[in-house]
Amino acid sequence: MNANSYIIGIDLGGTNMRVAAVSSAGEILCAERLKTGASEGYEAVIKRIASAVLSVSGQMPAKPSAVGLAVPGAIDFAKGVVTCSPNFPDWSDVPVARDVSNLLGLPVVIENDANAAAVGEGWSGSAKGVGSFVMITLGTGVGGGVVLDGRVWRGSSGMAGEIGHIPVRDGGRICGCGKLGCLEAYASANAVARTARERIGEEKARQLLGLANGVPEKIDSNLMAQNAGMGDPFCVEIFDQAGRDIGKVMATLALTLDISHFVIGGGMAEALPFLLGSMRRAALDHAYTLNEGKLEIVKATLGDDAGIIGAAWMGIASARPFQS
Amino acid sequence: MNANSYIIGIDLGGTNMRVAAVSSAGEILCAERLKTGASEGYEAVIKRIASAVLSVSGQMPAKPSAVGLAVPGAIDFAKGVVTCSPNFPDWSDVPVARDVSNLLGLPVVIENDANAAAVGEGWSGSAKGVGSFVMITLGTGVGGGVVLDGRVWRGSSGMAGEIGHIPVRDGGRICGCGKLGCLEAYASANAVARTARERIGEEKARQLLGLANGVPEKIDSNLMAQNAGMGDPFCVEIFDQAGRDIGKVMATLALTLDISHFVIGGGMAEALPFLLGSMRRAALDHAYTLNEGKLEIVKATLGDDAGIIGAAWMGIASARPFQS
Repeated sequence: MNANSYIIGIDLGGTNMRVAAVSSAGEILCAERLKTGASEGYEAVIKRIASAVLSVSGQMPAKPSAVGLAVPGAIDFAKGVVTCSPNFPDWSDVPVARDVSNLLGLPVVIENDANAAAVGEGWSGSAKGVGSFVMITLGTGVGGGVVLDGRVWRGSSGMAGEIGHIPVRDGGRICGCGKLGCLEAYASANAVARTARERIGEEKARQLLGLANGVPEKIDSNLMAQNAGMGDPFCVEIFDQAGRDIGKVMATLALTLDISHFVIGGGMAEALPFLLGSMRRAALDHAYTLNEGKLEIVKATLGDDAGIIGAAWMGIASARPFQS
Repeated sequence: MNANSYIIGIDLGGTNMRVAAVSSAGEILCAERLKTGASEGYEAVIKRIASAVLSVSGQMPAKPSAVGLAVPGAIDFAKGVVTCSPNFPDWSDVPVARDVSNLLGLPVVIENDANAAAVGEGWSGSAKGVGSFVMITLGTGVGGGVVLDGRVWRGSSGMAGEIGHIPVRDGGRICGCGKLGCLEAYASANAVARTARERIGEEKARQLLGLANGVPEKIDSNLMAQNAGMGDPFCVEIFDQAGRDIGKVMATLALTLDISHFVIGGGMAEALPFLLGSMRRAALDHAYTLNEGKLEIVKATLGDDAGIIGAAWMGIASARPFQS
């Protein structure tokens, strides 16, 4: 593609979609946020995606060269099919890439949203120039994207990178996936808030409860990060424990794949200063192949744009490694 | 290479090396076992490797097209250098491939022995035709080889596949690697024998102790497998627990890489009938992405030849996937 061409990247959520024109250097040129309208059914969502593309590309001097779409859920990348998606419960093996392409007359590529975010960070974010890394997204759940030699590793059924469901506690909390003791049940934004609420009767929870105006339901990971920033040992301790669980999973990934670069994204990445110490300690304590100098844990730099930018990259050259 | 050409594959151990002429179809044509002479120093071992190649190739009608060498330890594959090796403590960044090649005038490729075994099983053994799988070798330790799309995944420093050092127990036994609670400390042949010896005072250990003529030091995983085969609940229970730890690691690998095919090799693969039930249960219990039909756990079929055959494959075409 030439320097003036661009790609449309879309991050499709259950409620909103973010649509942007992305340059061939991975920069966002212009962007819009629109309603997804998931409840109106599959056909309506596909039409909304197409008109969102036209709306953004109408602001540009030329047509886009391709469209890349990041979708939550299980994707058959090669076929451009969404196998299933938690945000679109009625979608089952729907040929999203073909259907959007038919409406627009443009090439369309789809990718899982966690994978797209990892690709975005690898292309123009915090992992630029790093061949192999794992991105861990700490949000409502814990997502993952595994990048090997500049390519996202999807696995044969597109289910790779399910880092959030690696078991970290024997028995332990039941996870949204139905299994016990998953990382997500201990180290997501929801999980740390749950831990705080479960321990709210403790004397040392008093400061946090005060900050939440005495209403435990108001406690979330942002409030906890704010409180940890004020030095509250209760919140510091809970983040510390979550960091330990994440670090242990990092050790496992390092031992399995010889990966030593980890990117932390998602809303709870803001709490990274309170997670980082125990994360590093646990990773180093459990993987003899890591050492202080080798282990890199960095915060994602593209924020909410990572998925759009990664989706746009997929639209350019899905099979080309970033570093080629 | 044409149908009549062959490669020399070598599996280099600390005490012995096995050397074989391997056909372009992955079959062993003739083989020898020779002393390694590790105590005589690096130069002497290199000369012994070269003369072993000449000894085997002298029995063949033509010269080999290449030599592939499987070495225990950390390998820089691209440079052909052994970084360090537990079996050759004085080897540090030694250019084995170049030095053997200089003596023979043949191309020489080196590979880590666990990776070579995985490649062998993928080329002509139990994982033939399977694009992505993990081989787990249950011997003195627990080794691993990760194969993705027909290529062994080494990582940037050649340390990938260290499956045996994935943490499975909080705290727990100290492992040879210096860390606590590694899989190897619970599920290697040495580890299950250790568990039996630690519990030898228990009433239910009586049958096993009898089989060992009352000498706990005589207990090894073979004796335990024999005893489990006679229905002894003590040995069945210990294998069951080891299988559970291995299955949990399989779940982690499945979640990370979307891998569902596992090959079990090494001396303790003989005990697979006593490990398999709990292994499958634990893998399915911990990975929501697996199911009964998808999960394949098979015994390695090449036995001690896997490393030689895999090394020979590396000698043919180190960068070519098996399935191309």
